[in-house]
Amino acid sequence: MAVTLAELARRFQGKVRGNPEIKIVGVAPLETAGANDIAYIADRKYLPGLQRSAAGAVILTQEDAQNFTGNALIVDNPHFCFAQTAELLHPLTPFTPGQHASAVVAPTARIASSAWIGPHAVIEAEAIIEDGVYVGPGCFVGAHAKLGARTRLIANVTIGERCRLDSDCLCQPGAVIGGDGFGYAKHQEKWHKVPQLGRVILGHAVEVGANTTIDRGALNDTVIGDGVKLDNLIQIAHNVRIGENTAIAACVGIAGSTVIGKRCTVGGQAGIVGHLEIADDVHITAGSLVTSSIDQAGVYSASLKAQPVEKWRRNAARLHQLDELVQRLSDLEKKLK
Amino acid sequence: MAVTLAELARRFQGKVRGNPEIKIVGVAPLETAGANDIAYIADRKYLPGLQRSAAGAVILTQEDAQNFTGNALIVDNPHFCFAQTAELLHPLTPFTPGQHASAVVAPTARIASSAWIGPHAVIEAEAIIEDGVYVGPGCFVGAHAKLGARTRLIANVTIGERCRLDSDCLCQPGAVIGGDGFGYAKHQEKWHKVPQLGRVILGHAVEVGANTTIDRGALNDTVIGDGVKLDNLIQIAHNVRIGENTAIAACVGIAGSTVIGKRCTVGGQAGIVGHLEIADDVHITAGSLVTSSIDQAGVYSASLKAQPVEKWRRNAARLHQLDELVQRLSDLEKKLK
Amino acid sequence: MAVTLAELARRFQGKVRGNPEIKIVGVAPLETAGANDIAYIADRKYLPGLQRSAAGAVILTQEDAQNFTGNALIVDNPHFCFAQTAELLHPLTPFTPGQHASAVVAPTARIASSAWIGPHAVIEAEAIIEDGVYVGPGCFVGAHAKLGARTRLIANVTIGERCRLDSDCLCQPGAVIGGDGFGYAKHQEKWHKVPQLGRVILGHAVEVGANTTIDRGALNDTVIGDGVKLDNLIQIAHNVRIGENTAIAACVGIAGSTVIGKRCTVGGQAGIVGHLEIADDVHITAGSLVTSSIDQAGVYSASLKAQPVEKWRRNAARLHQLDELVQRLSDLEKKLK
Repeated sequence: MAVTLAELARRFQGKVRGNPEIKIVGVAPLETAGANDIAYIADRKYLPGLQRSAAGAVILTQEDAQNFTGNALIVDNPHFCFAQTAELLHPLTPFTPGQHASAVVAPTARIASSAWIGPHAVIEAEAIIEDGVYVGPGCFVGAHAKLGARTRLIANVTIGERCRLDSDCLCQPGAVIGGDGFGYAKHQEKWHKVPQLGRVILGHAVEVGANTTIDRGALNDTVIGDGVKLDNLIQIAHNVRIGENTAIAACVGIAGSTVIGKRCTVGGQAGIVGHLEIADDVHITAGSLVTSSIDQAGVYSASLKAQPVEKWRRNAARLHQLDELVQRLSDLEKKLK
Repeated sequence: MAVTLAELARRFQGKVRGNPEIKIVGVAPLETAGANDIAYIADRKYLPGLQRSAAGAVILTQEDAQNFTGNALIVDNPHFCFAQTAELLHPLTPFTPGQHASAVVAPTARIASSAWIGPHAVIEAEAIIEDGVYVGPGCFVGAHAKLGARTRLIANVTIGERCRLDSDCLCQPGAVIGGDGFGYAKHQEKWHKVPQLGRVILGHAVEVGANTTIDRGALNDTVIGDGVKLDNLIQIAHNVRIGENTAIAACVGIAGSTVIGKRCTVGGQAGIVGHLEIADDVHITAGSLVTSSIDQAGVYSASLKAQPVEKWRRNAARLHQLDELVQRLSDLEKKLK
Repeated sequence: MAVTLAELARRFQGKVRGNPEIKIVGVAPLETAGANDIAYIADRKYLPGLQRSAAGAVILTQEDAQNFTGNALIVDNPHFCFAQTAELLHPLTPFTPGQHASAVVAPTARIASSAWIGPHAVIEAEAIIEDGVYVGPGCFVGAHAKLGARTRLIANVTIGERCRLDSDCLCQPGAVIGGDGFGYAKHQEKWHKVPQLGRVILGHAVEVGANTTIDRGALNDTVIGDGVKLDNLIQIAHNVRIGENTAIAACVGIAGSTVIGKRCTVGGQAGIVGHLEIADDVHITAGSLVTSSIDQAGVYSASLKAQPVEKWRRNAARLHQLDELVQRLSDLEKKLK
């Protein structure tokens, strides 16, 4: 596919500076882009390299374009314009609807004629697969589960029985939606399993990363709001609720029944313990543990940064004496009074 | 299935208060339970809502039932009674024994006639599948592996060759039992793989969460005791041994050759380094790193709680000066003497 | 297979002490080794048990062999010699080349005649599978992907389209190579997906642990150098580059665009935030978070060790007052001047 710079400007509400008739066939990094590629500046630290780029055009803000003499597509939000351009020029590989001969589809499953069920996929009884859904190789969709229109399961994804994904969801390989929650009653030193009877409900346009796991609710459902984006290897426990457009980075764990607000971000490897409420617009830094509810928007942290080990060990040892140190300090203060 | 409150009391050693003849058909949350549902109080903070519930009956302790005028099933351990009631009223979907036409089963595998081998499952040579085992879609059972009676692999589970699961185990989707341990010998800057020749041995009634991984031993086996419960996305390295009825929350990592006692609990995202011994009845809080052996029962922690980032940054910066601060404090103490 | 001690010495540049003609058939742990097994000392703390071992022979350094009267194979690097011996005596189960009848292989895929494509595997269009490759059950190899000679995918592994694995790679079950990177542009409170157009490139002899995920690059590729070893449940984000012979333990997360040097080691559950540069020969301890670039070889840490919870809570509370404590200390210092 080829498109002129003028056409990109028209589609994405931008302005052209330079040659509007240049043909753009792809997006590329600034340093390797050729005469028919469009690039963008991911970080202003790359601005000095802008003039050296052989890119056919660059997506820039008005300000960043000031000292640039090449072709530019000037927009308010270059990152968003770049995403749209990439989507236009590098569309998903289209698929022919139907079912691979090796797929195992229950007779009572309802599969839209525009959907694709890939090789070795398994669709169980009464499942509903809507228009334009893509079920990749090796995926499993349990009984009574539902995949909304245009939802895609890339490969080896597991969707447990009765779970529901709304339209335009995307599950990366190995994602597991609807495993049992971790619920046991203790009786005479043994753990007795509590049947996990709830479901997982994903809203519109939720993305679930590779090998991420979302457990079904114990009685009520686990609910992930519209537009939530989950990176890889995340654990979402039973009965968690996540508000719209929250984004969570890889390796995060969220324990049972915690409720997270809208538009939050959670940094990689952060953890949130169970039964908390996190307000809208809360941002948790990487590696931080949240142990109590947060009722105010803002940034929260408990990240410690690595330092050379000899120095760290001395400081960490002191940390383990901190309470005693405070006593010593208080004693000194008393003496001085 | 419907059962009277009197029948539940008889089965689970409880007492009825109210109408013993009320029919119970399901368990439900307090706030949505209807006239034929039984509910319970997961946390005493919900006691104020008890009287407003439309539940047909509620499972309660004697004490919590005092001010409640509805039908009650009074027991010593409501959580356990609730688990049993849920199991009775919402039993697992029964399966018809046999093998799906698409399953690939080695001729030398020994499959009990009461077991089910699901679509696209693969069972390799000499594997032993005992009575009532359920092997879900896409699961792989390696050569000479053994699944004890009534063990269930939900979907896309991998059981490596020679690994052994005792009776009544349950593996959630994506679990990997018997991947190679992470063992290499360094030689001239390169890592040379050490063949991982041991197995993974799971005791009776072990549960393995979604996408959890348990590595085979290097020479000896990795051994998980009876009744151990592992949540999702846990890593158990080679030659780890875990005692009976220990429960481990999601995202925990346990490094090689560590031995964990009985009845321990490990909070989410905690880590235990290799070659340690952890006594029975040890409890590790979420996010804590255990770097030395623990020989006494008790609760151990190194969890830091997130706070507003401006405040945290000031404190964290001071932490990196802590050793120096102690020097300053010591100097003051000397001067005052 | 049986081999004399003399033959092992010849192959692995060692010296025999004792009977060179003893037949060795396997490797075994010191405490269970029999008369035809060879053992080694994994840690010098086991030296006292050496003389009691019934092992046919033991691999030892000159020094450790001093007080041992049994048969010994004396080498400079016993761990490496043990790895080689184990590999010799316990070789991988050979496979018959070909394709299982249930495998789904695109007509345009190029499969070497010496490769094996296992049951329920799926190989898509134009994929290249070189000599001696093993594709285990349930694995997926996307369009235009390439598996170099002797590379092995154990089971249920996903290789995304266009990704390339060089020769002698090994992917444990559930590994996902080439999921989409976590890239979104924010626009009016919503996350708009940025197409992930890059690939994952694995060098020679890379090992990828069970359920580990490596994301494809956004525009450029994610690149893992020769000889890199990745344990289980690791997240490698888009555009990360890892230098040769670096080894990373389980549950580590590395965020986008970070570049890691050669011969580094990263302890379990450590995290490295995005867009950093880590020099060669850097070692990060378990559980540490790296938040800024490291330009000097060495050991870096921010690991806190768990302690009994009452003691820890007092210290952790003080940590949250640390900035204030420093003020108090400074006040005292001023008064004393």
